[in-house]
Amino acid sequence: MVSTRQTVRISKPQHSTGDSYRTVEREEVLAVAFRDFVQVALAAGWNEPEVALSLADIADDYVMALAGRVAEK
Amino acid sequence: MVSTRQTVRISKPQHSTGDSYRTVEREEVLAVAFRDFVQVALAAGWNEPEVALSLADIADDYVMALAGRVAEK
Repeated sequence: MVSTRQTVRISKPQHSTGDSYRTVEREEVLAVAFRDFVQVALAAGWNEPEVALSLADIADDYVMALAGRVAEK
Repeated sequence: MVSTRQTVRISKPQHSTGDSYRTVEREEVLAVAFRDFVQVALAAGWNEPEVALSLADIADDYVMALAGRVAEK
């Protein structure tokens, strides 16, 4: 077996974008899903510092790429 | 339907922890899996800036929590 597959479940937003509760909901939903995601990576055999540091880098790069795309508009 | 489920696949490391190629492999593997993860979140109805900023925060918190656990040892 060369990979680990697992289902990650992400709840749909129950509040509209204008609703201030949506931020709380989003953080909760994504934190749970992120934890599941990390478990898949650990189960595949990567160690925790590797996973944590890589995901922090990748997520930062994603924010920067997104900001770049917005700036180009 | 109140959530989106999707399978996220993470390849197992093919190189041992001492091997310098493992870093390259790790970044590739986790970047692909991260992209899949983001797609699940977008499919659930969260928008891209929400997902990007939340995941960057959560991943940073995870690094800090891990560093704290290591420091306590």
